[in-house]
Amino acid sequence: MKAITVLGSTGSIGTQTLEIVEEFPEQFRVVALSAGRNLTLFLDQISKHQPEAIALADETLLPEMRERLGVLSTADPSFKLPQIFGGPEGLEIVASWDHADLVVTGIVGCAGLLPTIAAIRAGKDLALANKETLIAAGPVVLPELKKSGSRLLPADSEHSAIFQCLQGTPWAENARLSTGLPTPGLRRIQLTASGGAFRDWSIQDLEKATVSDATSHPNWSMGRKITVDSATLMNKGLEVIEAHYLFGIDYDHIEIVIHPQSIIHSMIELSDTSVLAQLGWPDMKLPILYCMSWPSRFETPWRRLNLAEVGQLSFKSPDTEKYPCMNLAFEAGCIGGTMPAVLNAANEEAVAQFLEEKIHFLDIPKLIESVCDLHKNELIKEPKLSDVLNLDQWARIAVREFSCKGKTRISAS
Amino acid sequence: MKAITVLGSTGSIGTQTLEIVEEFPEQFRVVALSAGRNLTLFLDQISKHQPEAIALADETLLPEMRERLGVLSTADPSFKLPQIFGGPEGLEIVASWDHADLVVTGIVGCAGLLPTIAAIRAGKDLALANKETLIAAGPVVLPELKKSGSRLLPADSEHSAIFQCLQGTPWAENARLSTGLPTPGLRRIQLTASGGAFRDWSIQDLEKATVSDATSHPNWSMGRKITVDSATLMNKGLEVIEAHYLFGIDYDHIEIVIHPQSIIHSMIELSDTSVLAQLGWPDMKLPILYCMSWPSRFETPWRRLNLAEVGQLSFKSPDTEKYPCMNLAFEAGCIGGTMPAVLNAANEEAVAQFLEEKIHFLDIPKLIESVCDLHKNELIKEPKLSDVLNLDQWARIAVREFSCKGKTRISAS
Repeated sequence: MKAITVLGSTGSIGTQTLEIVEEFPEQFRVVALSAGRNLTLFLDQISKHQPEAIALADETLLPEMRERLGVLSTADPSFKLPQIFGGPEGLEIVASWDHADLVVTGIVGCAGLLPTIAAIRAGKDLALANKETLIAAGPVVLPELKKSGSRLLPADSEHSAIFQCLQGTPWAENARLSTGLPTPGLRRIQLTASGGAFRDWSIQDLEKATVSDATSHPNWSMGRKITVDSATLMNKGLEVIEAHYLFGIDYDHIEIVIHPQSIIHSMIELSDTSVLAQLGWPDMKLPILYCMSWPSRFETPWRRLNLAEVGQLSFKSPDTEKYPCMNLAFEAGCIGGTMPAVLNAANEEAVAQFLEEKIHFLDIPKLIESVCDLHKNELIKEPKLSDVLNLDQWARIAVREFSCKGKTRISAS
Repeated sequence: MKAITVLGSTGSIGTQTLEIVEEFPEQFRVVALSAGRNLTLFLDQISKHQPEAIALADETLLPEMRERLGVLSTADPSFKLPQIFGGPEGLEIVASWDHADLVVTGIVGCAGLLPTIAAIRAGKDLALANKETLIAAGPVVLPELKKSGSRLLPADSEHSAIFQCLQGTPWAENARLSTGLPTPGLRRIQLTASGGAFRDWSIQDLEKATVSDATSHPNWSMGRKITVDSATLMNKGLEVIEAHYLFGIDYDHIEIVIHPQSIIHSMIELSDTSVLAQLGWPDMKLPILYCMSWPSRFETPWRRLNLAEVGQLSFKSPDTEKYPCMNLAFEAGCIGGTMPAVLNAANEEAVAQFLEEKIHFLDIPKLIESVCDLHKNELIKEPKLSDVLNLDQWARIAVREFSCKGKTRISAS
């Protein structure tokens, strides 16, 4: 039986992870959970899974949490109170909880970075749904992985697809996950992109895109921030950077192909021109389960893919003019060092501003570009964790300043 | 450097195998060759690859062969005369040639059976393009493989696709090729079918199908017999039986899906619903090379797959009314024993009669069905090799008798 810690248990990845635990009670048990603010759902999860430890990211909610857990414990004598932690330190304690075999990191955004590093330092295997960890802190995380021997299993559907396709290669056999070593025989990674909410919109129409337009994803049910990232294709750009660190492959050998049906989740091209693909319905549960069952395959009663029912799969090259974020990500990745951290933070902040209706949809790439340009002269090639964290803050402030001044179009370099 | 024997070197598979040897002179060398009747091409191949041994299936051509090889040797003093063999025994000697690491069996039809078994008994690894070997003699071949430790690598594009997708499974890790053991985690095999020459024809139009119609394959460049098998979908039916023996999977878990573009060469569905597919342009060189390079991947300058250029991949369920051969093969496979041998021989003979314009296209499945029906009461569950060979002859004669009497519609059971 595998002991699982879930960071961000009330989010989209977290709830699906717990659903999987419930579906496979013989295989998995929960030892620790963390959540942000959704107390009611979190209490429900705690009562169901009875973890040994929990953490609340928002410390101000700790008193209420303790009280409600007390009520729970009084009502049900069989309920065992978990150890309760709060704030960033609390997250780290739970992330490195001793009894866990696998830590599923479903915290959205850069907030997941420190707990993820704590889990790595504790030698835990990780199911990584928090892509920002690698994007912002790849140069910091990779050496930590090497040191601790932790394995980084990708829970993102695209990276899971690549991971599944790579199973037969020496890469997977040696389990050199995330050590940055290239895979013999691997020539190219092709990430598929649905094209997001605006795949059928013209560039002109994008001027009028609203928050509600941008948060309606055609295929995947995901959080709001990542759905906007799908609409800008920044999500795919960030996945390119993630793939670079995860699979040790150069940016020249990573490509994006638009595939509206989201049935092929990604592909690898091998050196002899053979292409391997992983297919499935668009459902995050499969890649999450694979992280949990790997290297085994579990038997599930889930809906089986029927290609005759799907009928057609289509593909086209992405329109770089319509999706400037994609190129911004490729450029930031190629520059390396702290540039992806700045790109990622600027994107998080710009998307937040857009979701608060402070800026227009088309301002997102402009703000990111301006902040990245500004960072070019300050680039740190081999950053420390503190550099990454400082620049993350700096980039957010820079976006807010640009946006306040309506200066999204001005390059500050 | 891997030493290769090619059986059927002047055929479609054979010539492509030798092209690969020429492309990778550091990796491969030819030690033995066999051919049927095409002396001119065969002499050319012999002069180029200077094998240690050769065999001519047609013994009557041996005197001419010796003479022309003599001329070759006189003209070029550096040319070393190979040992020359002829007839069925000659094929077996060459098939089990001591210095070979891998025997590529490109002989079409049941004629490949005895040399293939000779190679297995000599403990050679095999690249199997001759699917009839397994279909007709699965119950004979599997125990031989187990005894000798030979590994059967599939050169058929569909089975290569499945083999490639299975690389990450315990099945491939233990190299339990063709020992009939099921693969943990494997739920279903999906063989893709182009639909052949008549995929856009109505059932009514098939009445008028000519030899020239049936031998024009839309996607693959192959021999005439196999192209007709594509048009009837018997090729796919035979591949179902081949897959059953090769991967140890029940007929209930093998499916056919029509995929006109022939880009996805086949798929596997794993127990957690994940589907893995292998993709590429329709070109037999890739699956042949994979047999030769396995478990490595070689670097080739071949044309790379570009899905944006392909645009669309489509899929539909096969029409069992239009393609009765498919069901005949499934039924023969499920019955097992000698039934697939009878089906295969009846098909070879019926296709030959069609190519000689003695019967109509739609008579092919009727003849096969009649002969299979006739065999039901004579079925041998655990045949010896001699049973398979006798029934192969019997089925051919039965087809000719039915066809002479115009009795294709009469069930003889």
